Amino acid sequence: MSSSTKPTMRIPSYDDVLIAHERIKPYIHETPVLTSRFLNDLTGAELFFKCENLQKAAAFKVRGACNAVFGLSDKEAKLGVATHSSGNHALSLSYAAGQRGIPVTVVMPKTAPQAKKDAVIGYGGSIVECEPSTSSREAVFAEVVAKSGADFVHPYNDPRVIAGQATCSKELLGQVENLDAVVAPIGGGGMISGTCLTLSTLAPNIKIYAAEPLNADDAARSFKAGYIIADDAPNTVADGLKVPLKDLTWHFVSNFVSDIFTATEAEIVAAMKLTWLRMKIVIEPSSAVALAVILKNPDVFKGQRIGIIFTGGNVDLDKLPWMNKLN
Amino acid sequence: MSSSTKPTMRIPSYDDVLIAHERIKPYIHETPVLTSRFLNDLTGAELFFKCENLQKAAAFKVRGACNAVFGLSDKEAKLGVATHSSGNHALSLSYAAGQRGIPVTVVMPKTAPQAKKDAVIGYGGSIVECEPSTSSREAVFAEVVAKSGADFVHPYNDPRVIAGQATCSKELLGQVENLDAVVAPIGGGGMISGTCLTLSTLAPNIKIYAAEPLNADDAARSFKAGYIIADDAPNTVADGLKVPLKDLTWHFVSNFVSDIFTATEAEIVAAMKLTWLRMKIVIEPSSAVALAVILKNPDVFKGQRIGIIFTGGNVDLDKLPWMNKLN
Repeated sequence: MSSSTKPTMRIPSYDDVLIAHERIKPYIHETPVLTSRFLNDLTGAELFFKCENLQKAAAFKVRGACNAVFGLSDKEAKLGVATHSSGNHALSLSYAAGQRGIPVTVVMPKTAPQAKKDAVIGYGGSIVECEPSTSSREAVFAEVVAKSGADFVHPYNDPRVIAGQATCSKELLGQVENLDAVVAPIGGGGMISGTCLTLSTLAPNIKIYAAEPLNADDAARSFKAGYIIADDAPNTVADGLKVPLKDLTWHFVSNFVSDIFTATEAEIVAAMKLTWLRMKIVIEPSSAVALAVILKNPDVFKGQRIGIIFTGGNVDLDKLPWMNKLN
Repeated sequence: MSSSTKPTMRIPSYDDVLIAHERIKPYIHETPVLTSRFLNDLTGAELFFKCENLQKAAAFKVRGACNAVFGLSDKEAKLGVATHSSGNHALSLSYAAGQRGIPVTVVMPKTAPQAKKDAVIGYGGSIVECEPSTSSREAVFAEVVAKSGADFVHPYNDPRVIAGQATCSKELLGQVENLDAVVAPIGGGGMISGTCLTLSTLAPNIKIYAAEPLNADDAARSFKAGYIIADDAPNTVADGLKVPLKDLTWHFVSNFVSDIFTATEAEIVAAMKLTWLRMKIVIEPSSAVALAVILKNPDVFKGQRIGIIFTGGNVDLDKLPWMNKLN
């Protein structure tokens, strides 16, 4: 738990977003916005799904990762980049580094699923294993950075990363007119912070809602309390949303978000399955949280034009969450 | 088995395709063309996936169904439409009739999965059940048509349906330049016939390949034999491709298709899973057959620009074919 409210890092500006977008355009997709008449009828709202599951590495996180990697000087880049993550940021940073042709090291717990390790290696990353504890991770990571001089790209609490993620809603505003609100999942707050940065500059009338698993509702509790509350080890199927807010993302969340809604595990899985069934796209559980809170709170969204960020599509196709009940 | 080669029905012309496209545009999506760098690297070809899984009702078959339904005079339309199908044509015709606000009756075996029946009803169709035999189906269907005067819209052997399906490759040609070949799955041959109709008119240099399950390879055997061979009850995971060619589709297949390749059940399921994994879209097994034959015959396609028709995305998410091995 922390009550710090002032970020120690530089807060990115919208100029950083413009620079980021020009910088990363060759390496990312302008992802499509899909709609579903069925889901519109079901919610009474007009929903516009920004499909970052169809992004490179199937995650919006390539935006921030590419901005960090391609913003390095040649001298810095030579030393490579490093991070600790077993999720989409690890994949995305590996993709970005691969595009620039520089080394990338990911510190990952020994216990991380082999599929995640294989995916990082598939994108050209190197893995250094640590014990599955915060202390081991920090010690091993410090050693990696000390040895290599690699640039640390944090998964979300980094102005370069937030400026990169902000390009997603910049695209969305060019694709859909007259939105009333945007709903995005919240974990560490990188996507929401980027959304706040863009919308507060270009379209301050559009409301910003965050969606969080009830099982990992530290952001919702932080939002109510007025200071960052960090849970130790929340357990949710939406595995991209377990991490806590940090000072930079808290700045954006506390200043620009209208509300944070939560959804249960069952609601998240149902929204995920419904999306696969009706929209014919593969989204990961974290992506489904935004739709889940809209289905749960129809009165908040009814009659409005809502942008929804589908954040990623990396799932284990052999272990789909709705299959658990059958086995 | 039949050796008839001359169709008894009118062969649709490309003018019919132009009329069809104007007629159905308000009721269908111009579906996106997606690409995958991973699959390009894997095959050594440049692949352009025309995503009819993202079409209304998640099937290209709404094109032909809408063309038939909206081509009826008001007097004809009042009597409704009817078909026998337990697959995507049933859904698509129900969708089309719903859009025009006319009755639609689908004759379906008692034994068809409840999910299929529910889907037809969800789109506003009425179901009349028959015994799971050809004789019962034909008798029940004749009775339905006699009673209602409904217009019979055959799933594929109908010039209106073929002209509608032909709008798919018409769109594709506008979306991708300089294609060397188009690969589409073949069952009854409706999609392939439409593809032949468009390409033979607009771009006769583009080769047309059909892809078929080895377990239901009646079209491949027909192609070699030079006359229609119809299997009785082939069994394949690609359940949209079990039906035989008929006179009208045979006309197009025998005149314009360069070759027909087959894939095993395992190859089809692997291509399906690979598509979900790398492209993050939901395709049904029938859709995957085209990619399966490209993966199987790299030398035929290497270095070329290939259009692939992903024909549909209707799957039972609780019974995915790669799950069978685990249970």
